[in-house]
Amino acid sequence: MYKEQYPSKLLEEAVDAIGSLPGVGRKSALRLALYLLRQPSENVHHFTGAINALRDGVQYCSRCRMLCDDVLCPICSDSRRDSRTICVVENVRDVMSIEATGQYHGLYHVLGGIISPINGVGPSDLSISALVDRVKGTEIAAESPLEVILALSGDVEGETTSFYIYRQIAPLGVKVTAPARGLGFGDNLEYADSLTLGRSIANRQPFKLIQ
Amino acid sequence: MYKEQYPSKLLEEAVDAIGSLPGVGRKSALRLALYLLRQPSENVHHFTGAINALRDGVQYCSRCRMLCDDVLCPICSDSRRDSRTICVVENVRDVMSIEATGQYHGLYHVLGGIISPINGVGPSDLSISALVDRVKGTEIAAESPLEVILALSGDVEGETTSFYIYRQIAPLGVKVTAPARGLGFGDNLEYADSLTLGRSIANRQPFKLIQ
Repeated sequence: MYKEQYPSKLLEEAVDAIGSLPGVGRKSALRLALYLLRQPSENVHHFTGAINALRDGVQYCSRCRMLCDDVLCPICSDSRRDSRTICVVENVRDVMSIEATGQYHGLYHVLGGIISPINGVGPSDLSISALVDRVKGTEIAAESPLEVILALSGDVEGETTSFYIYRQIAPLGVKVTAPARGLGFGDNLEYADSLTLGRSIANRQPFKLIQ
Repeated sequence: MYKEQYPSKLLEEAVDAIGSLPGVGRKSALRLALYLLRQPSENVHHFTGAINALRDGVQYCSRCRMLCDDVLCPICSDSRRDSRTICVVENVRDVMSIEATGQYHGLYHVLGGIISPINGVGPSDLSISALVDRVKGTEIAAESPLEVILALSGDVEGETTSFYIYRQIAPLGVKVTAPARGLGFGDNLEYADSLTLGRSIANRQPFKLIQ
């Protein structure tokens, strides 16, 4: 394989480091390294400092395993949120995506991944037992039923993980739900994949005007 | 404008830092920050350390202004290179591109930019006077003529810079050249832009078989 010639060992090491990021090729890495070289020294130190601070200082919410700066994340410590609804998601980005919709007012539970035997990820690598404990702990004090929304991806691994969790929490008497699946709102039939289209017809719902 | 809600100040600051890189949007920055968070701490410190080391430790060749780890860059200190040819380029990446071809065996002179009044870059911001001094210093000891190749970009700013340098060094009795311009080798006429095609016909050359 062709190996570029770097005029400087320091440059080569920085390109190696930047190029190790996912989705950043060696050409982009060189471009970014030379960009950083043109910036004032304090900006570069601010850049690397922010990354170090994130890696060294980050904490996870003791209740929902969301990334945070404290023992409880801002969502878990917000008393206006509905503590009778727990939305189970794969990762931090999913929480941010759902929060960005402004449509959900319950709590979360971040699994930290998904069951994937091919990648060596089993149930014990995820915060599933913490979820079960949490459900057990909440359920006893129940005046209204506890709802757990399994908002995992729709692929085989997501379905497997959802089913694994369902089997553990359904016997505890909680209401288990999942986000609606079907044609995208505003989507054209013509461009829907046939799996989605077929299932959307099979799972058809009473017509209502868009709110 | 919509501003994402971050669960952690540290995460937000890291995303701000990574998103300040050119060509990296906020979504990619978040993806990269969460990727770094999943890496072992020592890998992250190696990553940021390599960038800090580049920024703090980098030097520029005292002769050609190429990035290097020493007083003279590996090219300038290589006695097998033809010291009677100087290729003037805009930046470090151009040197690496030309070196990668393996077709050039002379020295370089890195301007560190290009004359661009709109970006506030004038001749004094570039290493043009150093080039003139270098040419003057080399020319006196001449047994064979000194050649300066102006390998700058073909746009207005590149042409302006080339012309500015030409006017200063041509009176010193050096041979001033530029890389051949024309249709790309292996290019199809059909896909050439009309400026390139027109000029390639006007500047036609004696036919020879490809070496």
